[in-house]
Amino acid sequence: MKDFISVKDIDEKAFEEIYTIFKNYKNRYKNGETKFTDLRGYSILLPFFENSTRTRTSFELAGKILGADTINISGSGSSIKKGETLYDTIKTLEAMQSDFIVIRHYMSGSAHIVAKEVKSHVINAGDGTHEHPSQALLDAFTILENKGKIEGLKIAIIGDILHSRVARSDIKLLKLLGAEITLCGPQTMLPRHIEAFDVDYVTTDIDDALKNKDVAIFLRIQLERQKKVFFSTLNEYSIKFGLNQKRIDLLKEDAVIMHPGPVNRGVEMQSELVYGERSLILDQVENGLFTRMAIYKFLLQQ
Amino acid sequence: MKDFISVKDIDEKAFEEIYTIFKNYKNRYKNGETKFTDLRGYSILLPFFENSTRTRTSFELAGKILGADTINISGSGSSIKKGETLYDTIKTLEAMQSDFIVIRHYMSGSAHIVAKEVKSHVINAGDGTHEHPSQALLDAFTILENKGKIEGLKIAIIGDILHSRVARSDIKLLKLLGAEITLCGPQTMLPRHIEAFDVDYVTTDIDDALKNKDVAIFLRIQLERQKKVFFSTLNEYSIKFGLNQKRIDLLKEDAVIMHPGPVNRGVEMQSELVYGERSLILDQVENGLFTRMAIYKFLLQQ
Amino acid sequence: MKDFISVKDIDEKAFEEIYTIFKNYKNRYKNGETKFTDLRGYSILLPFFENSTRTRTSFELAGKILGADTINISGSGSSIKKGETLYDTIKTLEAMQSDFIVIRHYMSGSAHIVAKEVKSHVINAGDGTHEHPSQALLDAFTILENKGKIEGLKIAIIGDILHSRVARSDIKLLKLLGAEITLCGPQTMLPRHIEAFDVDYVTTDIDDALKNKDVAIFLRIQLERQKKVFFSTLNEYSIKFGLNQKRIDLLKEDAVIMHPGPVNRGVEMQSELVYGERSLILDQVENGLFTRMAIYKFLLQQ
Repeated sequence: MKDFISVKDIDEKAFEEIYTIFKNYKNRYKNGETKFTDLRGYSILLPFFENSTRTRTSFELAGKILGADTINISGSGSSIKKGETLYDTIKTLEAMQSDFIVIRHYMSGSAHIVAKEVKSHVINAGDGTHEHPSQALLDAFTILENKGKIEGLKIAIIGDILHSRVARSDIKLLKLLGAEITLCGPQTMLPRHIEAFDVDYVTTDIDDALKNKDVAIFLRIQLERQKKVFFSTLNEYSIKFGLNQKRIDLLKEDAVIMHPGPVNRGVEMQSELVYGERSLILDQVENGLFTRMAIYKFLLQQ
Repeated sequence: MKDFISVKDIDEKAFEEIYTIFKNYKNRYKNGETKFTDLRGYSILLPFFENSTRTRTSFELAGKILGADTINISGSGSSIKKGETLYDTIKTLEAMQSDFIVIRHYMSGSAHIVAKEVKSHVINAGDGTHEHPSQALLDAFTILENKGKIEGLKIAIIGDILHSRVARSDIKLLKLLGAEITLCGPQTMLPRHIEAFDVDYVTTDIDDALKNKDVAIFLRIQLERQKKVFFSTLNEYSIKFGLNQKRIDLLKEDAVIMHPGPVNRGVEMQSELVYGERSLILDQVENGLFTRMAIYKFLLQQ
Repeated sequence: MKDFISVKDIDEKAFEEIYTIFKNYKNRYKNGETKFTDLRGYSILLPFFENSTRTRTSFELAGKILGADTINISGSGSSIKKGETLYDTIKTLEAMQSDFIVIRHYMSGSAHIVAKEVKSHVINAGDGTHEHPSQALLDAFTILENKGKIEGLKIAIIGDILHSRVARSDIKLLKLLGAEITLCGPQTMLPRHIEAFDVDYVTTDIDDALKNKDVAIFLRIQLERQKKVFFSTLNEYSIKFGLNQKRIDLLKEDAVIMHPGPVNRGVEMQSELVYGERSLILDQVENGLFTRMAIYKFLLQQ
């Protein structure tokens, strides 16, 4: 396993291995060991063709904590503006002796195309509406930390399923690990061939979706990615699909709430719930850092 | 003292402590010790929501020289573009185990709001028209180096007082340290309730302001921050409030001239005076580096 | 030799010295020594006023591999937006104790102007249409590696000579080292006073230019730098001046093909030739990294 492009790249054994590395780094960091040399002498190049704070920062900081040299390359300010093809950009980075290429790109499948062409470890930090596999890992680790298991858990994923690479990655990984998945969203935001998603239940009624669940994952309404109208107003979306206190009561008593961020406050959930007692949103961010450290280390060991 | 948000956060004792650290770093650096490990294993996140060269570069380089991992986050290219609130951006950075958050933001009071919410050390690198406390420190250190004291010095601050966070921070700190402060600017650029500023004298006549002063601090006309017209032409401003050789002669013989930069050449001062023999403008920049190193170290020791 | 502004700064002896350092770094790196301390405690500031991927990334990564602290400064997001002059920007960076300033600027001659004013080592990473000397070095090293010598080689440089700083630097260096240079391009893209270029032959006929050459260097059509029309269509340019398989056969049997990148695929050359067996384009990028490491080290030793 040279690259980490899709959740499909890992099986249960690889998942367990990465989780073990993750826990090891997190424990050591929390005990004051905040600088490592595991990646000293390695370079990480981060071409990001879409805006990002948490994913880019997380991958960059994870690399630095491990002792790697990191280089940011953004769409603006780079040769992309000169019309260079993605393929040529990546071949160029490879020629600069990159050990890791962490790529975010607006085209679905881009990371896969790139990975085949280079010897560097390629990590998909989000490709169009296709996959965001490191997010799926950190989501699974966060659930595991809080629930002790994933097998048999009832998990609802709510919102803009159609445009969400997080949903695609989460579904595959959580199903692999034995969860029971319910999808919920407005009809216009459910993929046309929903049966291609290997899930247990699909509904457009959020109350139906939340009932008796262990975990509710809310997806971001990606206003910046949409070219058409998928609902009449944000307010209507919030009323029909947003989380409020009454809907929390439909979940199991010890249920947890997650969101990949950034939250549109008052849209996907009421503002006061974002960092409420059920919310694991900041745990997701924190675990994101250690997950990315673990991904680097795991790929190096292969 | 967890944060450094305002000049009001420090008293004379804290000022002396930071100055001692500053002198120590500057001496060691000038003697060839250009790399330190004081911040090894610490991370510094720099969300900058306004353009900056000297402040951002200075804080970033200061962190790197001390051995920290630094991460730049600019308004463009980040989740700000996705409509994330400042509060959520900062909570996210905190969750990534940031030790220091150095923030520049266009909203007055933003750094204070942020600091209350996180355990990270928050350093205000400029918030709207409110404060720029690290600039005040480096200004005071630069004066101290050159004059040996601040108590009793006669200091004129000239220009766009209304929009200047530098003026607000400088006034508070220099008054604390016993200077006598004169403010001068066009009527339209003096705050309406000038009496709220604890200064010794206010005038709209620059010749009156400069007379017999030890230090003259010129403020940048922040064309990029103004939405209204505050003077008829730049040329008129220059004639009425710009520094020229004749006006230098009004100052004390050993007086020094300062400016936080970047200078609008020919506006706040005649071009040939920018790096003239009286000018401490490059000393301010140099001291800015060691001041930021000292601020990091001081906050860590608290 | 404090700075590296122009190919004219180096003679054959300096060239040999830099080549020796280059080979040393490349060998050690290829043998697994991927992290050095030669520049530990040094700072490299990279003000880039034009878009760049390969040059900026290459200089930044080279610095990091050598252990330096590197700071990116781009036109956008910096005080350039506040109207600061280039001179003041550079004086400011110098005051921050920069050891190296690597500058790319759209104005021809800018790096030279800057270098005179500061003690820092200034490296020209491209100034307008004037020079790009590190590109010339890496081109020469790449030819040397593949041909064992430069003296007596027949080298064609093809394309937009008029706008190309790469051409200007390559010509000077390759002539110094004894190559025989042919220039070729559309009449509108040849400088008016072509005789000022000390070359051996000039032609507007690419078949004439390629015949019996050891090396063919294709230049990028810099669509982003042109304000006028220099040819009717890209397609016409491609037909008249683009490389195709038939034209490769005009070259010597063991000839090599180079391009500074990014290639406009289908314009300067047919797409399938970009990384074809004759192409050294990725070698150029790889050698770019070690060339920049060598430049830093060489300037330090002076």
